[in-house]
Amino acid sequence: MTQRPLILVCNDDGIFAPGIAALTSVMQDLGDVLVVAPDSPQSGMGHAITINSTLRVHRIEQTDRLTRYSCSGTPVDCIKMAVSKLADRPISLIVSGINHGSNSSINVIYSGTMSAAVEGCIEGIPSIGFSLCNYSYEADFSASLPYVKKIAALVLQKGLPEGVCLNVNIPSIHKSKMQGVRVCRQAKAFWDEEMDERTDPRGGKYYWLTGIFKNMDEGIDTDEWALANNFVSVVPVQIDITAYQAMEELKMWDFSTHDTL
Amino acid sequence: MTQRPLILVCNDDGIFAPGIAALTSVMQDLGDVLVVAPDSPQSGMGHAITINSTLRVHRIEQTDRLTRYSCSGTPVDCIKMAVSKLADRPISLIVSGINHGSNSSINVIYSGTMSAAVEGCIEGIPSIGFSLCNYSYEADFSASLPYVKKIAALVLQKGLPEGVCLNVNIPSIHKSKMQGVRVCRQAKAFWDEEMDERTDPRGGKYYWLTGIFKNMDEGIDTDEWALANNFVSVVPVQIDITAYQAMEELKMWDFSTHDTL
Repeated sequence: MTQRPLILVCNDDGIFAPGIAALTSVMQDLGDVLVVAPDSPQSGMGHAITINSTLRVHRIEQTDRLTRYSCSGTPVDCIKMAVSKLADRPISLIVSGINHGSNSSINVIYSGTMSAAVEGCIEGIPSIGFSLCNYSYEADFSASLPYVKKIAALVLQKGLPEGVCLNVNIPSIHKSKMQGVRVCRQAKAFWDEEMDERTDPRGGKYYWLTGIFKNMDEGIDTDEWALANNFVSVVPVQIDITAYQAMEELKMWDFSTHDTL
Repeated sequence: MTQRPLILVCNDDGIFAPGIAALTSVMQDLGDVLVVAPDSPQSGMGHAITINSTLRVHRIEQTDRLTRYSCSGTPVDCIKMAVSKLADRPISLIVSGINHGSNSSINVIYSGTMSAAVEGCIEGIPSIGFSLCNYSYEADFSASLPYVKKIAALVLQKGLPEGVCLNVNIPSIHKSKMQGVRVCRQAKAFWDEEMDERTDPRGGKYYWLTGIFKNMDEGIDTDEWALANNFVSVVPVQIDITAYQAMEELKMWDFSTHDTL
């Protein structure tokens, strides 16, 4: 009997979030599933790893085809723990999510969901981050699931180029409105931050980080355009972040230090 | 009288690390300096931001040409706080470091030092991360300082292309051995992780994340090669991480979902 592929499932909203339950359920149609996910929400953790403190792991479910662990660390810690310690055979696919909220455009850089996929990619395993454009804990994932399953099945079958993982964002709309899938580039955007200043009961000042999302990109080949037009966006993301196009200019600079010594 | 440029200094080792003191001192030769740095070490924090808890800021020094704040958040939080709240005029340059330890090759993705520079770049400000290839708290930064000053002065003068910041790594060697500066690409490398398993006094298992750095890249145009050959490495880093070269192949895939519904 041929062994089914082993699929690792992670997220950043924590192991008890509805999004990872939906993702786990779909992945069980495609293979045996190992879930290793944070024991508490880790949104906005970017590519953080735990090096100044220790990690704990607890197995919370084990059946023939599904094993689930919670981990005290970040999403990236979970991937490292799964790959180096918990998986009992090679992992064929890593999926992260389904995130409660968009990770399109510049959000890819802040996203714990995508950092799990990027870490999988660094480890040489085909990896995908999935996000639904709905921040609610009670979001309805049903319309997204056929796309999640199809894209995961394609990556299982075809693999991905070396050093590339996928950032998949799904509009939060009824399935009848879904327009299909678009392969896109990351839109140019940023958050215009504001620090919401408040005063604590003892008179001390503290701040909540808030901001307004600003899309600076009118291209129709971007993830923001796709999502605004009811498409699922698929952005290939690379781990070599060298700005090759800037190298020639920089090589012309005179870096000699005789004048600064 | 012309105003001197305002230079924002951040790091991830915390505001009391020797590396940020060295960097602050050099930057005072180039402009007025605003330091906003974490109040505790934040190594390995990647591009983490604080969204589920609050931030605190304390001013710990203010003179004519130097103001220093500690912040309870991550390096990225510090940049957002400085740009949106603490700077009293436009920031001309952001420098992060000098990190105690290398951020070359794949380490750029895990680095809190570089995430501060990347955040500066997202905010549209010329930004540089500096790292010394020596993890010791007592590292000698003296040989690195002429390079730090020269590169910062060049960026102040020339700016950087939109969406590009610099990842500068400096070998930890005597100044007489320094070979100069190389503009490089990020070497292909990864960490071969191991989870160091231990038992606590109550019999529970816990783990320290450890690993061995594996450079898979023999190119002489990489940062790893430059550092091994006593050059300062300068890698331009971009915030658009789309893998453009993978898009054509992905566009050929059949994403139709009729078989997964």
